[in-house]
Amino acid sequence: MPDNSPSPPNLPRLRGFIADFTRLVERHSGDEPTILDAGRALLADLIATDDWLPDAYAQPDPVHYRQYLLHCDPYERFSVVSFVWGPGQRTPIHDHTVWGLVGVLRGAERSQRYDLQEAGGPPVASPSELLEAGTVEAVSPRIGDVHAIANALPDRPSISIHVYGGNIGAVRRSVFDPLTGQRKLFISGYANTALPNLWDRSQPVPHAA
Amino acid sequence: MPDNSPSPPNLPRLRGFIADFTRLVERHSGDEPTILDAGRALLADLIATDDWLPDAYAQPDPVHYRQYLLHCDPYERFSVVSFVWGPGQRTPIHDHTVWGLVGVLRGAERSQRYDLQEAGGPPVASPSELLEAGTVEAVSPRIGDVHAIANALPDRPSISIHVYGGNIGAVRRSVFDPLTGQRKLFISGYANTALPNLWDRSQPVPHAA
Ligand SMILES: [Fe+3]
Ligand SMILES: [Fe+3]
Ligand SMILES: [Mg+2]
Repeated sequence: MPDNSPSPPNLPRLRGFIADFTRLVERHSGDEPTILDAGRALLADLIATDDWLPDAYAQPDPVHYRQYLLHCDPYERFSVVSFVWGPGQRTPIHDHTVWGLVGVLRGAERSQRYDLQEAGGPPVASPSELLEAGTVEAVSPRIGDVHAIANALPDRPSISIHVYGGNIGAVRRSVFDPLTGQRKLFISGYANTALPNLWDRSQPVPHAA
Repeated sequence: MPDNSPSPPNLPRLRGFIADFTRLVERHSGDEPTILDAGRALLADLIATDDWLPDAYAQPDPVHYRQYLLHCDPYERFSVVSFVWGPGQRTPIHDHTVWGLVGVLRGAERSQRYDLQEAGGPPVASPSELLEAGTVEAVSPRIGDVHAIANALPDRPSISIHVYGGNIGAVRRSVFDPLTGQRKLFISGYANTALPNLWDRSQPVPHAA
């Protein structure tokens, strides 16, 4: 995957974030409020500077939004995903079943939260929020887990970086029909079969094993 | 990275190995003999079945052997690398400065260990060993860290899977001149800018974030 951008992506920034977040989930396993508080600060710091996401993980699809896995914890305790929305693209109404953090890296997104009705029927929308670049939002079954996200920009892609309390592409969760509230199970998977190699810190030098 | 092979690679095997090895380095940090003993068994198990390495990480280069990073621990406590030797290819004489395990997955390799002379001069070779598929060998500064490895097959590639006690592509280490013993520092890096995504365990389903 050759990189033709004028300056190479600042991978040490993402590498540092992954080490910090690994430490966080290791130390505070099961303590969701602490993970969300401290994780929000880590993610805010990561998205404060837009110099590190390799171009390959910033490409929109013409039809659907895309989710590129950037890193998965070896125990699947958390995952880091780049979501890329083309103009006009949006998610269905969905849940996560694990905690999640959404940080806008580029552009702007519109977030709409929903309450499910006990008796069924359409999910009840809260007022929508505009998330500008630099904003971090949290979801979880404890604090509100059902939402939909849309690109707020009509003319260019928006990108957000999400962190979830599991391997989100493998989690069994649900989408909801906006008219009937009917639940449908889904497993999202990922758009990419290859992850960025964050670990090459060499200068060009002779080979050896 | 489309996979055109008849059956998809058995990624759960590699995923399980990575989780097991993470557990091992976590529990026995600093205890090299235990890590090498238990790690040898894990690696022997991984290479006992040749059904899991994606083709993209099994491609020889026409000129040099290649080292493809498959996984790096988020704290850089260990890394897993696929080494692919074309016919006639070999490493220089080199050290590692960290522990290493070499497990032959495909083909056969010839391993040559060396002792450095205090007073300088050419490294002293031990009798070479033929490593057939399924064999695991260990190196480290404690048990002997200087060797060279060559493809033992004249007509096709050989592949070995290596595990090291660090992010080996970023480690400052040495190659040695076979005639003079002169040491030259190097940092190997990796051949690949993208790692395999081991974490997509979905069935094809509708998208959501
Ligand atoms: Fe070696
Ligand atoms: Fe979501
Ligand atoms: Mg690749």
